Amino acid sequence: MADVFAKCRLPATYQFVKDLGVYPYYRAIEERPGGAEVVIDGRVLVQAGSNDYLGLSGDERVTEAAAGATRRLGAGGGGSRLGNGSLALHEELEARLAAFLGRAAVMVTSAGYLANLALGALVGPEDTVIGDRLIHACLIDAVRLGGARLRRYRHHDMEHLERLLDAGEPGAGRLIVTEGMFSTSGSVCDLPGIARLARLHGARVVLDSAHDVGVLGAAGRGAAEHHGVEDAVDVQTLTFSKALGTVGGAVAGPEEIIAYLRHYARSMVFTAALSPGCAAAALAALGIVAAEPERRDRLRVAALRLSGDLAATGYAVVPADRPVMAVPVGDDLLCFRLWRELFDEGVFATAMVPPGVPPGQALVRVSVTAAHTEAHLDRIASAFAAAGRRLGLTREG
Amino acid sequence: MADVFAKCRLPATYQFVKDLGVYPYYRAIEERPGGAEVVIDGRVLVQAGSNDYLGLSGDERVTEAAAGATRRLGAGGGGSRLGNGSLALHEELEARLAAFLGRAAVMVTSAGYLANLALGALVGPEDTVIGDRLIHACLIDAVRLGGARLRRYRHHDMEHLERLLDAGEPGAGRLIVTEGMFSTSGSVCDLPGIARLARLHGARVVLDSAHDVGVLGAAGRGAAEHHGVEDAVDVQTLTFSKALGTVGGAVAGPEEIIAYLRHYARSMVFTAALSPGCAAAALAALGIVAAEPERRDRLRVAALRLSGDLAATGYAVVPADRPVMAVPVGDDLLCFRLWRELFDEGVFATAMVPPGVPPGQALVRVSVTAAHTEAHLDRIASAFAAAGRRLGLTREG
Repeated sequence: MADVFAKCRLPATYQFVKDLGVYPYYRAIEERPGGAEVVIDGRVLVQAGSNDYLGLSGDERVTEAAAGATRRLGAGGGGSRLGNGSLALHEELEARLAAFLGRAAVMVTSAGYLANLALGALVGPEDTVIGDRLIHACLIDAVRLGGARLRRYRHHDMEHLERLLDAGEPGAGRLIVTEGMFSTSGSVCDLPGIARLARLHGARVVLDSAHDVGVLGAAGRGAAEHHGVEDAVDVQTLTFSKALGTVGGAVAGPEEIIAYLRHYARSMVFTAALSPGCAAAALAALGIVAAEPERRDRLRVAALRLSGDLAATGYAVVPADRPVMAVPVGDDLLCFRLWRELFDEGVFATAMVPPGVPPGQALVRVSVTAAHTEAHLDRIASAFAAAGRRLGLTREG
Repeated sequence: MADVFAKCRLPATYQFVKDLGVYPYYRAIEERPGGAEVVIDGRVLVQAGSNDYLGLSGDERVTEAAAGATRRLGAGGGGSRLGNGSLALHEELEARLAAFLGRAAVMVTSAGYLANLALGALVGPEDTVIGDRLIHACLIDAVRLGGARLRRYRHHDMEHLERLLDAGEPGAGRLIVTEGMFSTSGSVCDLPGIARLARLHGARVVLDSAHDVGVLGAAGRGAAEHHGVEDAVDVQTLTFSKALGTVGGAVAGPEEIIAYLRHYARSMVFTAALSPGCAAAALAALGIVAAEPERRDRLRVAALRLSGDLAATGYAVVPADRPVMAVPVGDDLLCFRLWRELFDEGVFATAMVPPGVPPGQALVRVSVTAAHTEAHLDRIASAFAAAGRRLGLTREG
């Protein structure tokens, strides 16, 4: 009889990488002094991998709101939203999100992953979902749970998307799924192109705004606002774990779609409600996102500055004003070594190897936040310069 | 071209039930005075549907721990555990859970649903998962995401389980999946029977202890401790949203399985870390679970008393010391009406209709917690008596 668990062993490279001292994952943060630094192994490092883009996770208005709601309503909900776990606080958050996003209705979930999984209830075996090659794991899982066909177009390739729309079976429903700002590179999808093709082919559009709500658009409504095509998006999903500085997620869209999801999305119906603390934190953060657009400006300036520095140092980085940038490395082990050099220089970035990225395209992901000062950006840039020299990765190397 | 969203409409019964004034879902709780009451529409009701079995969600030690961690570490993690979101606090919680459960290793996830989804990484198309007919939605989703065959045995039916084990393909790996205490009825699985069959057939055993950790067993380790067969369970999953009073989840098991999941479980790798507040709340609650076994005693006494009262009133309830009890109704509309009568009497229970239960087996789920006083139990019992009389549901009716 075969043992189910026999296959569940880490590859030998795992131990090899650990033995080399360059294993980059699950490094435990002991403290978070200020919004842009972390203490690991007793050392203070610059956090250069966080998705807390606006620096709100540690904002006193956000943490005090969370603490107050926890004291007033408890540390947890005690049940599913459907049954006995709904709070007026959840409803307030949903109403505020709907008003902010300009969408008819919003459903709040306990995690961003669960918000995207909920989309599985919208599709069935009769549907075709056509997604960008690099959409997030939870969007793919949603399609698999829904039982729909999944077709993927080359990253940002509108001609490929059009061919896949053409190739669909005549009677099949079509849903285009994309991220607004992609999590690894910071590149923004061609939403006007997607909107045009969707209209032409009668397809619906789902936009995952996990990384772009709070960041893109003058008001912070994300990639669709940035591109001026909000009406072309049927359903927008988001997470609270990036610019909103806490944990949770949401699906925004037409009244009847959200009402349907409230009763048929398994990741909504069969999960415990979002904690009062996280709900209150998201609500407070949303207020700051709306009231302080200057955070987005600061973020853009910081991103442009750091990406410019990295490019000037000789890394294959294109200067841009997006808070996420990918520093291409290629080889997995070299990626781990670059991560380690940065770590030793006092910078905590993220090493990304397959399956997080395609094979042979390992990279170090760097993110800037509104909490980074000029001095933090200097430290990140100089760490990359020093590491690049030592590893022979840059022109100066 | 078919519209993907055309099928996403609630059935007409939904509006009908709303128009009748008996729609029981998504009722918003405004306040939670004490641990056992809720305010809805300005009225104080007894909460009779919570999974906060030990009454820890509002315990000051738990809420203060959550508030303190939120202030110190922020309202969110800012990233995935794998990348940049791991906290020493998460590791402390994992170590304490492992010690408490007597398991080699533990992985903490951001929701209980995500803990069970992680199991999808342990199985593949070559495996057969054999689960009790009533296992939770997220366990089924995990199997579907893993691509394994799913076979389901009749609820608690060991002969049926044995036949399914016999019928498996010779080379296939086998995994038996069960809940410890089932969420709707409070019944406990026949773990000694499952252990015997697993040994006989070389199958692995996954136990979902969502509802039994903190509740069953002298030390609160759940159904396996209760039955004295902890060694027969290979992997145990749990949630923090029931007896631990907050939000989050965990998978406990052998060192190499947990290490594998840390790198291959999509619901771990690709989700934002559990919030500092929830992690600290779970840690504080775990300490109380271990230090105050009298809460479990109080819970058993309360459960026995209420189930006895309901049986004496004429409901088809078997008196038992489990905190969850199902009051069978059968018809969906009658179930909603019973729910509404209870609500009007000041009791907030849970109406369960298909797909949450099999067709024709609608029921009202009642749960008791350690926070219920004698007076609360009296109010629940008398509400059921009054509602049963009015609806002709009880012998006295």
